[in-house]
Amino acid sequence: VAVAHPPRVAIQGERGSFSEEAVSKAWGGRAEPLPRRTCEEVASAVQSGHADAGLLALENSLAGTVTASYEALLACPDLSAVREIVTPIHHCVLGVRGASLETLHSVESHPVALDQCRKFFDRHPFLRPRAEYDTAGAAREVAAAGDPSRGALAGRAAAACYGLDILAADVEDRPDNQTRFVAIARTPASLDPGTGSRSILVVTAANEPGALARVLEAFAGEGLNLSKLESRPTGEPWSYRFIVEFEHLANSDAVARALERVRAATLSFRLIGTFRRSPAVV
Amino acid sequence: VAVAHPPRVAIQGERGSFSEEAVSKAWGGRAEPLPRRTCEEVASAVQSGHADAGLLALENSLAGTVTASYEALLACPDLSAVREIVTPIHHCVLGVRGASLETLHSVESHPVALDQCRKFFDRHPFLRPRAEYDTAGAAREVAAAGDPSRGALAGRAAAACYGLDILAADVEDRPDNQTRFVAIARTPASLDPGTGSRSILVVTAANEPGALARVLEAFAGEGLNLSKLESRPTGEPWSYRFIVEFEHLANSDAVARALERVRAATLSFRLIGTFRRSPAVV
Repeated sequence: VAVAHPPRVAIQGERGSFSEEAVSKAWGGRAEPLPRRTCEEVASAVQSGHADAGLLALENSLAGTVTASYEALLACPDLSAVREIVTPIHHCVLGVRGASLETLHSVESHPVALDQCRKFFDRHPFLRPRAEYDTAGAAREVAAAGDPSRGALAGRAAAACYGLDILAADVEDRPDNQTRFVAIARTPASLDPGTGSRSILVVTAANEPGALARVLEAFAGEGLNLSKLESRPTGEPWSYRFIVEFEHLANSDAVARALERVRAATLSFRLIGTFRRSPAVV
Repeated sequence: VAVAHPPRVAIQGERGSFSEEAVSKAWGGRAEPLPRRTCEEVASAVQSGHADAGLLALENSLAGTVTASYEALLACPDLSAVREIVTPIHHCVLGVRGASLETLHSVESHPVALDQCRKFFDRHPFLRPRAEYDTAGAAREVAAAGDPSRGALAGRAAAACYGLDILAADVEDRPDNQTRFVAIARTPASLDPGTGSRSILVVTAANEPGALARVLEAFAGEGLNLSKLESRPTGEPWSYRFIVEFEHLANSDAVARALERVRAATLSFRLIGTFRRSPAVV
């Protein structure tokens, strides 16, 4: 008899990261987060079965697309996006006991997090932003170094996790800042017909006039709204794959017809996943 | 009488960077590069008149779009993209005298450069990639530190510029790696009618089914090939601007008709520039 265990969910980043918050939100505290350094490692943990699921940050409302997450999805044809989680993001500047904004020289964080706080850095030109692989990972390193000249940009959970003080709170450029994550798994999601859903598709269109327009017309012709369109390089100079996200009702005939037209109009085609659409946070 | 001076061209990064190589390629050694830390600072140097032109790396064939460059273009309505320069990119691992791949613990560079050498880092898992603001800037800091455990990922010009040894050469994932730059200026380019050109456009489409398809149909209907399509956040959660690049002959009626249709189909519209198309490097 298989022993039941709480689902293990691979996350990019350390304990106390926003990914861990998103796991709590989605699994209600029943999941065990498995920290991984990169999005690629999140995907391989799921592929190899070390993790039951993984979490990837697809985009942030201020900083835009997290390309490493889409790259990880594109690189793993056996994995599916199965769930969407949108979570508010509030950044704090953290430091060791005795530090203040005045003692800091640098603030370390994930580059996508630094990007969400550009106005703060404009107002504090003496603070040098430094890219790290993770928000909470930066907090952990600042705590370990014990150096009052080093700050980390991360969430309140990271402050609690690594015993750091909050030197400035909610420093993101807009208070409605939010990040959209997807959970990935080895098996596609099964959805009740009619569920408000979103799908992620990757296609290669011929490099000729109208090629991409034919793809988009396939969706427009069925009244399906595109929520995202993004080009990614194939490696071959100036040739691209396109990532398309669109909104629809699960198991609808309109989607089947649109995808049939897209398949006919493209050189390659892969459905990365279909999942219940999560509302924006308001 | 105005004193003639060599054109001053603001670049993102330090002397010895690939941007400096692109300036030499475009101006044949007659220009004076002005190093700036960020793409935003490149744009403001041009806007304020400190520089006659600026150079922005738009995309790399392996790593994709350089979003900071497009953000700088979007933020400066008074500047135009006036020229395109495509240049081959070969990365080397650089270290101080006495260093070797075995003595290194970390390799510092611009994150887009690190992204072009993923296979090298996969083969050398003991080397930790560290994000810096510039390839040549990383080389300069490694040289100044004199520390044989620190390497920089940059071009041959940076090795020469800062007196570093080449510990591994041509470590990019593909030998045909190349970056596409645009020059920006306060005045749009003037092109002979019929010149093989490219234009960059930014539009906001309504968030409704078919909105973006109507934009693309405007180009397809005139036989114009889209070379790039990219969404960028507006800041407002999950609302986007689209950057469209398309190929055409300068001053053609087809372009005028397509742009008229695009203008009618969008909520906002701005032509960022039209310039002579540069061929890919082969």
